Amino acid sequence: MTFRYAQRMAKVRPSAIGELLALGADPSIISFGGGYPDATLFPQEQLDTIFHDIIRAPGGAAMQYAPSNGLPHLREQIAQLMSADGTLCTGDDVLVLQGSQQGLDFAARMLIDPGDVIITEDPTFLGALIAFEPSQPKYAVVPVDSEGMQTERLEAILSANPRARLIYTVPDFQNPTGVTLSLVRRKQLIELANRYDLIVLEDTPYRHIRFSGQNLPTLKSLDTEGRVIHLGSFSKVLVPGLRIGWAIASPDLLARMGLLKVAADTQTSTLNMAAASLFLDRYDLSAHIATLRTAYATKKEVMLDAIRQHFPQEISATDPEGGLFTWLTFPESFDATAFMREVALPQARVAYVPGATFFPLTPRANHARFNFSAQSEANIQTGIAALGLALHANLSF
Amino acid sequence: MTFRYAQRMAKVRPSAIGELLALGADPSIISFGGGYPDATLFPQEQLDTIFHDIIRAPGGAAMQYAPSNGLPHLREQIAQLMSADGTLCTGDDVLVLQGSQQGLDFAARMLIDPGDVIITEDPTFLGALIAFEPSQPKYAVVPVDSEGMQTERLEAILSANPRARLIYTVPDFQNPTGVTLSLVRRKQLIELANRYDLIVLEDTPYRHIRFSGQNLPTLKSLDTEGRVIHLGSFSKVLVPGLRIGWAIASPDLLARMGLLKVAADTQTSTLNMAAASLFLDRYDLSAHIATLRTAYATKKEVMLDAIRQHFPQEISATDPEGGLFTWLTFPESFDATAFMREVALPQARVAYVPGATFFPLTPRANHARFNFSAQSEANIQTGIAALGLALHANLSF
Repeated sequence: MTFRYAQRMAKVRPSAIGELLALGADPSIISFGGGYPDATLFPQEQLDTIFHDIIRAPGGAAMQYAPSNGLPHLREQIAQLMSADGTLCTGDDVLVLQGSQQGLDFAARMLIDPGDVIITEDPTFLGALIAFEPSQPKYAVVPVDSEGMQTERLEAILSANPRARLIYTVPDFQNPTGVTLSLVRRKQLIELANRYDLIVLEDTPYRHIRFSGQNLPTLKSLDTEGRVIHLGSFSKVLVPGLRIGWAIASPDLLARMGLLKVAADTQTSTLNMAAASLFLDRYDLSAHIATLRTAYATKKEVMLDAIRQHFPQEISATDPEGGLFTWLTFPESFDATAFMREVALPQARVAYVPGATFFPLTPRANHARFNFSAQSEANIQTGIAALGLALHANLSF
Repeated sequence: MTFRYAQRMAKVRPSAIGELLALGADPSIISFGGGYPDATLFPQEQLDTIFHDIIRAPGGAAMQYAPSNGLPHLREQIAQLMSADGTLCTGDDVLVLQGSQQGLDFAARMLIDPGDVIITEDPTFLGALIAFEPSQPKYAVVPVDSEGMQTERLEAILSANPRARLIYTVPDFQNPTGVTLSLVRRKQLIELANRYDLIVLEDTPYRHIRFSGQNLPTLKSLDTEGRVIHLGSFSKVLVPGLRIGWAIASPDLLARMGLLKVAADTQTSTLNMAAASLFLDRYDLSAHIATLRTAYATKKEVMLDAIRQHFPQEISATDPEGGLFTWLTFPESFDATAFMREVALPQARVAYVPGATFFPLTPRANHARFNFSAQSEANIQTGIAALGLALHANLSF
């Protein structure tokens, strides 16, 4: 049978993410592909105790249904974390989500009619494009340099795109490039959003994993007109398997996202919300994050050192101040997708994410995203060395 | 600030479900409102052991990211459960969802362009209407009698609605009426779906909680052309707090729902999928369900007995063969919403769901849905008695 689908499905197609997650599961491949945190650093003992206590608690509340917008105590705790980071808010300003990915879907569904324009960094997070696609947006893109989205180019883009409705950004240690939006540009972004009546979607999964440099204020904390939807997540700082993220937004926006939450899946898992909440009550999340920072900073150094040692000199890599990724630039003629398929996977037994997939409009073939958080230091060295050999042997790519 | 929202948000409005979940949380109210299972019957000890074992398992896989369409072993296990129930399928035919609610959202997004028609039972599950609304459907409705959706009326409705795309049904112990679709009507429904090129969305959260009568084949097992999307859930037979549901559908439909899963929230919680999977490996779900059946059958009897004893004789209640709900019919002039607001809540301290909310097109005020699974037998007796007194004292309503 062939069925007739809704128009919104026209551009909803299989993506590289699914295939790459599958490749990452082959234990004979060293994958720098996914955005996985290091599983050896998961707070296993604490979560074990916590799940025991919430499941055994009288009344069974952690196993029952819960309010759609999230457990009230968890919402308060998230507001405290946000406020301690300079983004003042209360539990009423928090909507608990099924990972921050769900916030990307909701923001697009809430704001985008078919043909409306979403402005993204170029390149940008592939998962966001996947989330936006069923809302049938068009895209306008802003190039990224070492200080993030080039907001000085934004005004011309906004003038040329009267249907622009939403600016999507990962301001801290951006996915895929690892760069951070400077303070001057953060302020300029807010100023332009006000002037052009746009909503800003601020996605911050890596924000707290900073290795060096100074913490910068969130866009939400600089928001003067309630135009910023801030998305946060425990996936990278606690464990991804909980699937707990959140949105912070002004009441009007948050209420509508809350209605989409009821429609989309009723609620996030009560057990997982209760577990995250008890973790925050009982343990020091900052101390746990400090451990992650140290470990990932070391891994980043190991990867960049190995790249410098093993890769041809024409290949450059960003040196991020935090997060999970470095972004590689190969010579103009290099096709990172073809190289992965024909050489890296079958010969070097190494995976990464070819860069082309992160460009919403005009793919550029000579980039790749490398994750340094998931693999051990030994695997990083082995994988990069193997890839270096293959690159030297295939310079013509 | 007031913002401009996408057109799909026009009819996305706060619903009774949110308010009622809030009321149910007030411990001084006896709520027959929500569709909560009995928390005293949750498999607390088993889940405690299971979470301990999956969190402590070497490698931390249960806390890490997992494939978007679900853990492969869980998909196989669900296929085995389905096959044992007469719906033959393999793990490849299964998509794990964030509760079956997510399947309602995905089916509408996949199939419904604005103005396309969804055919529902009248009355129907409110949560489905909430899920469908952002896809901007119109509705056509089929009355329900003691044998479920009156499929003999369906052909005329299909002829009158050329844009009909989807038939939504809860065939077993329907929400809100508790009635079950007869075998003759199941076959007629499939036959008409084939003839009119429709997709059937079969929602079965209560299917395994049968008190009496004979198990009937799922619509999916009667599906001759791959037109049925079957939704199942562990919420009522295990615990709601896991938020694990699933879809079974033909490859083309399932693949597209899988793409929406990646877009919507990346994946269901790994921890919760791993927990459900280990429960199925280690314990006898059928034995657990047998306990639930006995308990809920007794509670149903307690509620119907109490209604017969305490309510005015003009009020009738359905006697369901399974599930969680009975459906009350009051005299034509009675307004169950007004009575709840003005008498039941403030005086009798009892909540239910006024029936008007379950009718997609023309609300009828003289109905109410009563849940008998959540409250203790003592509370059922106390609550129904208090409501009976209030009804007798307010016959003019």
